[in-house]
Amino acid sequence: MNKILDLGKRTTTPGKAPTVLFLWEGEDSEPWRQHMVPYLDGLDFRTVADVGDPTDIDYVLTWMPPVGALAGYPNLKAIFSIGAGVTHILRDELLPDDVPIFRLIDPVLTQDMTCHALHWVLHFHRNYAVYAGQQSNSEWLRHKIHANSTCRVGVLGMGTVGAGVAATLRDLQFDVAGWSRSEKKIPGVKSYFGGDQLRSFLNRTDILISLLPPTPDTCNLIDAQRLSEMPRGSYLINMSRGDIVVDQALLASLDSEHTAGAALDVFRREPLAKDDPYWRHPRVHVTPHAAAATTPEYGARRIALNIKSLIEGGWPDGELDRSRGY
Amino acid sequence: MNKILDLGKRTTTPGKAPTVLFLWEGEDSEPWRQHMVPYLDGLDFRTVADVGDPTDIDYVLTWMPPVGALAGYPNLKAIFSIGAGVTHILRDELLPDDVPIFRLIDPVLTQDMTCHALHWVLHFHRNYAVYAGQQSNSEWLRHKIHANSTCRVGVLGMGTVGAGVAATLRDLQFDVAGWSRSEKKIPGVKSYFGGDQLRSFLNRTDILISLLPPTPDTCNLIDAQRLSEMPRGSYLINMSRGDIVVDQALLASLDSEHTAGAALDVFRREPLAKDDPYWRHPRVHVTPHAAAATTPEYGARRIALNIKSLIEGGWPDGELDRSRGY
Repeated sequence: MNKILDLGKRTTTPGKAPTVLFLWEGEDSEPWRQHMVPYLDGLDFRTVADVGDPTDIDYVLTWMPPVGALAGYPNLKAIFSIGAGVTHILRDELLPDDVPIFRLIDPVLTQDMTCHALHWVLHFHRNYAVYAGQQSNSEWLRHKIHANSTCRVGVLGMGTVGAGVAATLRDLQFDVAGWSRSEKKIPGVKSYFGGDQLRSFLNRTDILISLLPPTPDTCNLIDAQRLSEMPRGSYLINMSRGDIVVDQALLASLDSEHTAGAALDVFRREPLAKDDPYWRHPRVHVTPHAAAATTPEYGARRIALNIKSLIEGGWPDGELDRSRGY
Repeated sequence: MNKILDLGKRTTTPGKAPTVLFLWEGEDSEPWRQHMVPYLDGLDFRTVADVGDPTDIDYVLTWMPPVGALAGYPNLKAIFSIGAGVTHILRDELLPDDVPIFRLIDPVLTQDMTCHALHWVLHFHRNYAVYAGQQSNSEWLRHKIHANSTCRVGVLGMGTVGAGVAATLRDLQFDVAGWSRSEKKIPGVKSYFGGDQLRSFLNRTDILISLLPPTPDTCNLIDAQRLSEMPRGSYLINMSRGDIVVDQALLASLDSEHTAGAALDVFRREPLAKDDPYWRHPRVHVTPHAAAATTPEYGARRIALNIKSLIEGGWPDGELDRSRGY
């Protein structure tokens, strides 16, 4: 992208040291400060407790900002999400509409997400959940190993993370396809795209991995109809957002054994309520939004370098396209 | 190897069609026959039920042959193990000593073994066993994700399978070392070798994967001393042979929480006895020797091609070195 920062009435004072606000309630800011300092000369790093004059704030680093919190900084030049997602920021209806928002593109995050997907694909494909059940009965019973090449994995959402997951599974000889809005050319990975091809994609998918960004189009996408379009005995791995899946439909499909199992890392409400049926379902594996997490070691450095790029007239990768919502 | 088949007094009749005995009790021979036929002109495929004249038998395919069963074929030219191991054959003290024994080198088997290792490395490294425990208490508690590069995996035994496992884990950025009798040069994998370096290897190993062949040297290798040389909180994945591990030492190390968990696929006695403490141990994952299994689709074809090679004066890969025992 060839852009320059032009924020109209927002004031830039030439030569002023960059002032950064860390806006993540309950998180220790100190590691983030430490890992930004080496990259930004004269960095003025503030937290909610010592924010000072709101007109000083040039940049915000944030995760789950309270509604309205980002409207109070009249000279804000950019918002940096601490994570690959931005919905935690966009849900704020008071969000200033003239400030660019950047997602964090983090190769460690892609790798962590890939390893989460890989673990659950192997767990289902190789019957480890079945063996765990047998162990509780001291039952020695071997199940046939089907070659990876006979297992059709489908990756729903082929952005940076989806493409990484697909490539790693392809390298282990799984039969991988991806579905996305537009065609993606990844060697050895079949590309399905657009609404018309979703059904064909689901028809051939034994293990579905949801990596879709949350948008009005993807909300409730995995409903009873879509689950029924997958083969009997198929599996779901949801690791993007909870509202992609209609929970009652998934539970019904699991109970009828059409869906053989699910590994769910994300939910409509997090933390998951104590009495949620997912906790107790024998074929659901719950993890607490643990597929990946941005670390200050990488994330602070990366965001600092992005701020430096803006100061020097550049434009970092990962800007949110507000018209698409991701 | 540049050898030719010379079996002294064992008789070869020129032009005779190859006669193959399938010696695996309780296994359906028919898929094996079907997958050999296309590769061996005039194949005479026999089973224990229709063995006929023992002097006809040229080749045996076997898994777990009964003691003495291989001594009864005076014109036997080669024994083919249906699997990467040969101890199931060598335990037979009546085994003829002038017949070559071939292990099955099977890339699908290497891949299946790799996926088993990979699953358990990810399972331990990413705390999925901990999350399963939390799920039973409806507990939402996230644990820090440590980068793969901080997790030191050690592969004990660097043959075909070990090298494959090490390379795959290395590609996922794990910090991988291997230990073997002699130095192995695999890019990005540290090589430790010989008895002198075993302690240094164990000292740096957070997750140990045993792929050692069973020999007098490796029997009981993983004892209390060796387990104590690994870091506190380390894990064991045993997927080669049960007698590599001193069971009482492992159980004691697990109970003291020096060893944080174990994934055991192989045992001294299989099936594992109903009352074995491994079944009930909360930090032991038992699988029923299920890391890999040779399929007739691949295995029969491969052995048929090896027999064809012998008939044509060649020498297949994978001959057992009886002096080393593997």
